[in-house]
Order: sequence, then structure tokens, then C-alpha cells
Amino acid sequence: METRAALHALRQQIRINAFTGSTTGAAPGYLQANLVILPAAWATDFLLFCQKNPVTCPLIDVTLPGEKSLASIGSDIDLSRDVPEYHVFYDGEFEVSVSDLSTLWQDDLVTFVLGCSFSFEEALIQAGLSIRNIDQGKNVSMYDTKIPCQSTSLFHGNYVVSMRPFTPADAIRTIQITTRFPKAHGAPVHFGDPAAIGIADVMAPNYGDAVDIYAGEVPVFWGCGVTPQNVIRQSRPPFCITHAPGKMLITDRLSSEFAVL
Amino acid sequence: METRAALHALRQQIRINAFTGSTTGAAPGYLQANLVILPAAWATDFLLFCQKNPVTCPLIDVTLPGEKSLASIGSDIDLSRDVPEYHVFYDGEFEVSVSDLSTLWQDDLVTFVLGCSFSFEEALIQAGLSIRNIDQGKNVSMYDTKIPCQSTSLFHGNYVVSMRPFTPADAIRTIQITTRFPKAHGAPVHFGDPAAIGIADVMAPNYGDAVDIYAGEVPVFWGCGVTPQNVIRQSRPPFCITHAPGKMLITDRLSSEFAVL
Repeated sequence: METRAALHALRQQIRINAFTGSTTGAAPGYLQANLVILPAAWATDFLLFCQKNPVTCPLIDVTLPGEKSLASIGSDIDLSRDVPEYHVFYDGEFEVSVSDLSTLWQDDLVTFVLGCSFSFEEALIQAGLSIRNIDQGKNVSMYDTKIPCQSTSLFHGNYVVSMRPFTPADAIRTIQITTRFPKAHGAPVHFGDPAAIGIADVMAPNYGDAVDIYAGEVPVFWGCGVTPQNVIRQSRPPFCITHAPGKMLITDRLSSEFAVL
Repeated sequence: METRAALHALRQQIRINAFTGSTTGAAPGYLQANLVILPAAWATDFLLFCQKNPVTCPLIDVTLPGEKSLASIGSDIDLSRDVPEYHVFYDGEFEVSVSDLSTLWQDDLVTFVLGCSFSFEEALIQAGLSIRNIDQGKNVSMYDTKIPCQSTSLFHGNYVVSMRPFTPADAIRTIQITTRFPKAHGAPVHFGDPAAIGIADVMAPNYGDAVDIYAGEVPVFWGCGVTPQNVIRQSRPPFCITHAPGKMLITDRLSSEFAVL
């Protein structure tokens, strides 16, 4: 586990835009988070959406309108600057990447901090399991599916899932381990036949990279933090900001603090 | 859950051989157990075998030589009479079924009480899952496999597994639920391709009945209490007694007392 001093030094580097890369593997042990930032007029409904869709949108905490910090995740976090790269959407369409939100900030913005799968990947590795995308130096494979999210007045869309291949015996272990991390998408939502959840070709992911699936392995699918971005594209809020995929907010909290059982 | 009075009345019926049928569904809530009874000369090695194979042989308790009772499982249990039907093996070969052991008892006999899958089946049903063999009024499908048990000096053999089909989403639930019952075989050992564990035809079980597997379902395989009988056939102790499959010892303990987490 990283020391707290090293974590704070990294966050400082991110804040001054000296570190703009992926946070995969950075600050091991510390909880990383997805961000969704919305105007207050859309935020209450998105809060309801998170409540109804805890597998894809596991809510860690949410700010009051205009607030840039959250004591629950760290004492010195500026949500408008401490992510390596933000994505800005207008009417649901991606517009631009930015490294901080200084010029875009509005006093009515509400920030949602959502758990991400990095937490359970660490736990899988600690349990002696190999994660193919990490072994192959690739981004995890992610797919649009036909599994519908529970809709609210303003938000709707289908699950995006991430996929990691395992032997059945290892897949059983991953189910046991990831069940302990409900705030990091929890247990898988599916394994085996990709078509059963609307995936036409498991070797052609919609996001991320394809990884090898060896003989005797089955693809195992988890709810994915890219789901909110898919939902935003379809639900078209006038303005929205997210983190860039793979470039997360690193919090002061330990992933293990969010494990159950 | 059955009242304790009803449980004791049932056990009395079994003791006087007025009830000689399957105990499936009898005394819901109470732990049912597999029995293996061996001469003391073979018992120490079988104790080691259970220790090395907790998934197929989850040991609840074991007697001292000659003892017919175990305070840990009930105050008024006679292990030589309280099973509806016993199977007697000589040199590993099945010889005869008997309804009590009065004429066969020896002062050096050691009784092993092993957990059985009835405990987790109850928990699956309580969680809203359907168990195909129960729905179809059949015995569970059981198969010889190529998964080797850990051998000891005297005992060796392969896993026998039981199979229940589920959709992947339900299979994930069964893994979560049965993980809580390590003394009832715990989590599955395999799902999906039967050939991967040496099963040529999932519709032709070696023990029990075939059940329908519907489109979109996968077979899920658990360690099975028939394994000891398979091991006895192959290891050929001079004398051995087991319960007859499906005709278990009903204990005074609740299945839920053995659940973890």
C-alpha cells in the first residue's frame, strides 16, 4: 500500500496537471472513484437513478450544489481539479476533454462520487487470481448490453459491463470476492454466453481493448462505471462532466474500508 | 421450521422402523447428515481424509470407538438405529441394506457425521430460487468425475458431484448463498462444460435422476456426500456402513447454526 504522503504528492501532481495519465495501479490500496457532475436541476433525479441502479452506479457520496469537496472521501480534495482528465458533455454529446474545471465551474453543480472496479481488481490479485487485461497490459473490455437500467424521470439507458475471463473454478472465487465490494459493482451480473445479455462479439468490445480468452475459460461480466456515461448520452442533460475513462479520482479512503463481511 | 416435538416424534418413528423412506423435506430447518461408520483401525486415516477433503467430506463430528451417540448433534440420538436405512459394505462391495445396526454393531466402530447438501438447498429455496430436481419430483443428478480427492494412506478416489441447473444470474446467487454453508459442501466446484470435470453426458447421471436443463441455463456442480461411498468402493476397507442415499440422519441442530457470515 502506498504511504499517505505519496498519495498526497500524487494528488498534488494531478492538481497542477503534471500527471494527466491513467490512474490504474496508482496509489494501490486507496479507493478510486468515477465522477458524474450535473446541474442541480438534474441532480435530484440522478440521485434517484443511483439509488435504483446500485450495481452500475454504486454511490459513495454526493456534494451539495456548488461544493468542490467532500469530507467523507478526504480532507484536501478539490473535485474540480483532482482528476487527471475530465470529459465535458453538452446535451449528452461529448464536447471536450479538460484537465481542470476552473473555467467551467458553476455554483449549481452537484458532484456524484461512484465506486469503481479497481477496488475489487486489487482484491482479486491479492487472492492470487490473474486479471487478463492487466497481464496483457490492456484496458479492460467493456460492452453495451441489452440489460436495462431502472429508469427515472430524466435518466434511462442500458447497462455497460466489463469482462474478465476466468476458468469456472476461478470465476467462482471471483464471485465470492467481488460480493464483498458492493460499492465497487459487487458480484458479476452474468457469465458465459455473451449473446444472452446482448453482446454480439465478445472479441469486439464497445470500449477498452479485446483480451484473449483461453480454452476452458468463460467470460465473466460485471456492472461497469461507464454505464453513467452511456446513460448521459441517451438522456441528454444540457450540461454534464465526468472523469475520463481510466483517469479516476483517488480518494483518501482505503478500498478495504468499503468491503463487507 | 418443524417443532422440536415433531422432530423427536419422527426420529422415534425411524428408530422403530415405522419410517424407512427418504428424509428429503422431512424436519425442515434441522441439519441432516451423511454417515460413514468404520472400524477403528481404518478410522484415523479416514479422519485425515475428511480433513484433506472438506468440500466432499465436511465433517460435523466423529465418535470415539464404540460410541453410538454424539452430544454435539443431539441429546437422544442412537447412531445405530436413527437412520431410516443403512448400507453395509464388505471389502468395499455393497452387501446389504438394513434398517438398524443391532446385529452388526462392533465395539470398535467409529461413526463420522458429515454435512449434506439438504442444508443449502433449504437456503436456496428460502432465497427464492427454484431447484429443478425438487420441482420435478426427482432425486438430484450426481456424477463421477475426474477431480481427484486428496489421498491418504488408505483412502483415495475421485469427487462425486451433484448438479443443479440455473441461469447465470441465479447461479451467481447460488454461489453467494452456498458459500455460507461450508459444512454442507460450500460453494460449487464447477459450472458449465461437464466434460471439463470428466462428465461425458450430463443427461446420464451415475447416481440419482436426470433433470431438464432449459435454454439459457448452465449446469452448476457441487461436491457431493456420495463421494465417501465412491472412495470406500475404491479403497476397500474390510467393513464399512453408510446411510442409504437420501435417507439421512436428522440431527437436533439447525442448519442455520452451521452457516457462516
